[in-house]
Amino acid sequence: MEQLRTPFKGVVNDFKGRIACYKKDWIDTCSTGARILAPTAYIFFASALPVIAFGEQLSRETDGMLSTPETLASTAICGIIQAIFGGQPLLILGVAEPTIIMYNYLYSFAKKSIGAQLCLAWAGWVCIWTALLLFLLAAFNACTIISRFTRVSGELFGMLITVLFLQEAIKGVISEFSAPHDANVLEEEENQFQWSYVNGLLSVIFSLGLLITALKIQQARSWRYGSGWMRSFIADYGVPLLVVVWTALSYCMPHEVPSGVPRRLVCPLPWEAESLYHWTVIKDMGKVPAGYVFAAFIPAMMIAGLYFFDHSVASQMAQQKEFNLQNPSAYHYDLLLLGFMTLICGLLGLPPSNGVLPQSPMHTRSLSVLKRQMIRRKMVKRAKEGMEEQASHAEIFGRMQAVFLEMQHSAQHNVDGELANLKEAVLQHDREDVCGKFDPEKCIDLYLPVRVNEQRVSNLLQSVLVGLAVCAMPVIKMIPTSVLWGYFAYMAIDSLPGNQFWDRILLLFVPRGRRFKVTEGFHASFVQSVPFKYIVKFTVFQAMYFLMCFGITWIPVAGIMFPVPFFLLISIREHVLPKFFPRHVLQELDAAEYEEVLGYSSSRRSLSLRRENGGGLLDEGDADEGDLDVSSAEILDEITTRRGELKHRSVSFNERQRQMIIPEGSSQL
Amino acid sequence: MEQLRTPFKGVVNDFKGRIACYKKDWIDTCSTGARILAPTAYIFFASALPVIAFGEQLSRETDGMLSTPETLASTAICGIIQAIFGGQPLLILGVAEPTIIMYNYLYSFAKKSIGAQLCLAWAGWVCIWTALLLFLLAAFNACTIISRFTRVSGELFGMLITVLFLQEAIKGVISEFSAPHDANVLEEEENQFQWSYVNGLLSVIFSLGLLITALKIQQARSWRYGSGWMRSFIADYGVPLLVVVWTALSYCMPHEVPSGVPRRLVCPLPWEAESLYHWTVIKDMGKVPAGYVFAAFIPAMMIAGLYFFDHSVASQMAQQKEFNLQNPSAYHYDLLLLGFMTLICGLLGLPPSNGVLPQSPMHTRSLSVLKRQMIRRKMVKRAKEGMEEQASHAEIFGRMQAVFLEMQHSAQHNVDGELANLKEAVLQHDREDVCGKFDPEKCIDLYLPVRVNEQRVSNLLQSVLVGLAVCAMPVIKMIPTSVLWGYFAYMAIDSLPGNQFWDRILLLFVPRGRRFKVTEGFHASFVQSVPFKYIVKFTVFQAMYFLMCFGITWIPVAGIMFPVPFFLLISIREHVLPKFFPRHVLQELDAAEYEEVLGYSSSRRSLSLRRENGGGLLDEGDADEGDLDVSSAEILDEITTRRGELKHRSVSFNERQRQMIIPEGSSQL
Repeated sequence: MEQLRTPFKGVVNDFKGRIACYKKDWIDTCSTGARILAPTAYIFFASALPVIAFGEQLSRETDGMLSTPETLASTAICGIIQAIFGGQPLLILGVAEPTIIMYNYLYSFAKKSIGAQLCLAWAGWVCIWTALLLFLLAAFNACTIISRFTRVSGELFGMLITVLFLQEAIKGVISEFSAPHDANVLEEEENQFQWSYVNGLLSVIFSLGLLITALKIQQARSWRYGSGWMRSFIADYGVPLLVVVWTALSYCMPHEVPSGVPRRLVCPLPWEAESLYHWTVIKDMGKVPAGYVFAAFIPAMMIAGLYFFDHSVASQMAQQKEFNLQNPSAYHYDLLLLGFMTLICGLLGLPPSNGVLPQSPMHTRSLSVLKRQMIRRKMVKRAKEGMEEQASHAEIFGRMQAVFLEMQHSAQHNVDGELANLKEAVLQHDREDVCGKFDPEKCIDLYLPVRVNEQRVSNLLQSVLVGLAVCAMPVIKMIPTSVLWGYFAYMAIDSLPGNQFWDRILLLFVPRGRRFKVTEGFHASFVQSVPFKYIVKFTVFQAMYFLMCFGITWIPVAGIMFPVPFFLLISIREHVLPKFFPRHVLQELDAAEYEEVLGYSSSRRSLSLRRENGGGLLDEGDADEGDLDVSSAEILDEITTRRGELKHRSVSFNERQRQMIIPEGSSQL
Repeated sequence: MEQLRTPFKGVVNDFKGRIACYKKDWIDTCSTGARILAPTAYIFFASALPVIAFGEQLSRETDGMLSTPETLASTAICGIIQAIFGGQPLLILGVAEPTIIMYNYLYSFAKKSIGAQLCLAWAGWVCIWTALLLFLLAAFNACTIISRFTRVSGELFGMLITVLFLQEAIKGVISEFSAPHDANVLEEEENQFQWSYVNGLLSVIFSLGLLITALKIQQARSWRYGSGWMRSFIADYGVPLLVVVWTALSYCMPHEVPSGVPRRLVCPLPWEAESLYHWTVIKDMGKVPAGYVFAAFIPAMMIAGLYFFDHSVASQMAQQKEFNLQNPSAYHYDLLLLGFMTLICGLLGLPPSNGVLPQSPMHTRSLSVLKRQMIRRKMVKRAKEGMEEQASHAEIFGRMQAVFLEMQHSAQHNVDGELANLKEAVLQHDREDVCGKFDPEKCIDLYLPVRVNEQRVSNLLQSVLVGLAVCAMPVIKMIPTSVLWGYFAYMAIDSLPGNQFWDRILLLFVPRGRRFKVTEGFHASFVQSVPFKYIVKFTVFQAMYFLMCFGITWIPVAGIMFPVPFFLLISIREHVLPKFFPRHVLQELDAAEYEEVLGYSSSRRSLSLRRENGGGLLDEGDADEGDLDVSSAEILDEITTRRGELKHRSVSFNERQRQMIIPEGSSQL
């Protein structure tokens, strides 16, 4: 309980740490110049599209009280605050699914009790309480316990969001079959049914169309076809582009079809009278009865808990140690700031924003100084020169290190430590010949450190763009709602790969004789290290727990308690699970990090092999290994899960096991 | 011109050869018992579904003069004749796309000149001429020149059919947007547009739905999930099953939707008065003016050419040497029989059938005595025993050979020759240690000969089933036409992989830096052996030629000449192409056989590796290599192209190249 005795210690430390590099956060961008616009645009689209979709969901669930302009405004305001005053400027904020669910419960409760017109005022009170709780959590250094939320909670929560997305998509498409709320159509009453039915069928086509095409282009970066630039463009901007394409297609209707078909986003424009109420919601807050003001504490606890969890995890993911960030973290200070932002949003009648996944790690990733390829090429060249000159491996490493230092522009602290793995990999070929021929490319691919362009400009610019999107509402309103339902389904399915809970559920359906198919490809390390019966036990437990959590969300008002099981899971994980599972099994299944093992027979990523693979296609002309068109982003794609987690790649599982024998003498061998 | 001097030599030889094993063809089935029903059902569905789809296409293009009952009847009659009297009983007959196209031209010509009511009579004359030409071709041993149709013609023709299928699918779906020809709907004229539009949208959903799901389940056999039985079932019967599923879904309409939406197959039932005309068409043949009788010779030449080509290639594919058939071929005799069948169909007013691809090789494949797995397991066991006893490799091979002989039920002629590769593979490990550890499984996987259950029962039964399907027309009529358009698109896309012309077109779009992605996986051998500029030149030539052929099909009446360019291609290939391409390049690009190279880094198929890939999943329990759930059909799937060609797998391209240096001193090295 050290953290209770030293209030504000974390916040103060964070603040001091960040103030030291604050100036650099702004100035560093100058050297990047216009190139910063690429990650800015990338993260803007990745961030704005879900916010638009959530706005539509919110609109439907709150009878239009809050909708897309409000979610966009909240995202923009909080993003700008975070970019300017935030501790970790890589953290992306936005209105996220938990907020939407919470506001759904708040609205349905308020509508039944104090009336829909006071709902936003009451939500304001909830935000005040939430802010207070967040202040307390920040002050008493609660972020130090974030590590007790293990993978099992994160994955369960991720799965819940996935299922809620899918539910939203299905509900959305079904609702399209009921009469469109459009005056034009309602007039010709006799065709009411036909047009509703046409609208429904169109919505099936548009939503499935968006879903399938979006899933197809997801892997664009690793396609064989097209130039690198095109593939990167499709991979980075493909989904927003598809929304545009499907929206354009939705206008290719015969003229007989009334304008309300297909149904499009319905919301007042932000400068229309109906929308302006939000800015004066603070005046209504006094009208909320005192009892309700205090009752607001219950949802506030849930929201504060969710935000504490979500915000910290998003921040953590944006600062994974593999990104090698040079600036310090600021969990405590950011939580304090989140309290302020929640307060502001509450008083403005907007749904609050918090740190979002996977956009935050996506942001860091897009900023990874993608000189990786350049460094790599130079390093390989230098190493080969060394090899030709029969230099010792220590000398070769020296040359590689020199390249690395030379290619770094900012001052480097711990280069030795970062290059330690590479050094070891290079030097071990001196010691043992067992490991095969020394291949500098292989070593570099596996061990070259990542560098990130840490600054505040990209976050600020993207938030400003989100703010400008509020003014673009007339354009946004052209999107058919069915395209957004498709987008929900896409978000759901997109979030599954890399979720080990999902991977394990799938594994249960793989008959024993087919499991070699799993171990043949890349797979998380638990697949090989944990006996199957424990995988089954653990997964069944998790699935039961998940069903319970999902069940709770269906309870009308008490559903607001749905985060409770996740908090409970901390003590279940700490006190109950160890009674049923051996320590090492729990460690593997509930590892803090994602560890991936290279399949035995498909060492696809080892570029080194490709050079040797001569013949007509590659040998023609003067193609050397430098000509292989593999972008750094493509490599990063391959080593990141959909949650934005970096996978730790064990080249050989058996090797690792061999190392483990000595310290652990583990029984699983 | 040897073959012109010895008329009927081929036919007589074929007849003698087949009569010798005729009794065995029937009796051999007895030992198989009910198990013969599996390939029968498999090939029945694979054969009946396209025939139904072609019937619908024919019906649309001949204004309902001919439709599904006629195509089914022709397929059944010809199939039964082939099964009982045919030379090669493995050959599957059916009404195929070329016939449909020809009948389309015949109808459009006849309608404009002698009138639609005499069309079938005139088509009867065309069939008489065709039969005559086929008799002549058979008599003068024309089948000996079938080898001069090289890969380039076959692929061009395959591509043409693919594009025509796609065109049919697209035209079909578009036509669904025009008013449904249904009395119920026409009555309520004011909703005419709405219901047509609903019908169109439904057809988009059903056709794309069938297409996407069918493409998904295509690879079912190699899925990780589900038991082997289930996967095989889905892979074998998935597409007909999907037609049933989508048909069932098409009945899940709200009751407000009129019965004509979605549109379903329209054709008179075979026992209704309208259908009975076909059987008396012979009476009308005398009414055809003499000029037209002789004019019928022109389409007859085209049809005879197409049939000669198609029938022989289908037969060839069903008897590829890798299937190791024990009974002799009967190309000449089968062509003669085809003439008779064409005559019968023409006189009955039915569209004639001919040998079909890929059903014929599918049939042989399904009959491959799938003891492969059993033989393999036993052989591996015996080999391992040998290895443990430190026996010499010659001795180990002796034991493996003994197993093989013991597992064969019928008398074996040339087992030594067939096992030669295996022998060499086993023995070479004695000679050179360079090739790595001796692994009996690897050798067996690569070199175990295939055995086929050669008999006449499966073909007879499946033809009878097709005949019974005529009686099931009331059920077949429940299929929405849009599902059939989706099926056309599926047939088109399904036929592309393995077509080297298509592979090469795709290759043109792979930028140089990405070509390693092609060589990484399995790929046809030309990819590595032919310089890229020749691949480009050859492919562009082929594409131009293809566009010309496709263009010809669009010419209203003269389009009937579309097979001419394919016949011309023989002499272009023999006399023109060698002037532009080096001999070895043409040999590789236009190889008679499909040769596939193992990608350098993805040796997925080598099951042997899997055993070594231990760990939690596989080591648990007493899993030995025999437990791996890889069915023989799955292995066959992997080594067959979509055309039904068996791929010749070169384990290492470089090795083959090394062997080639000596005889050829080829310049490409």
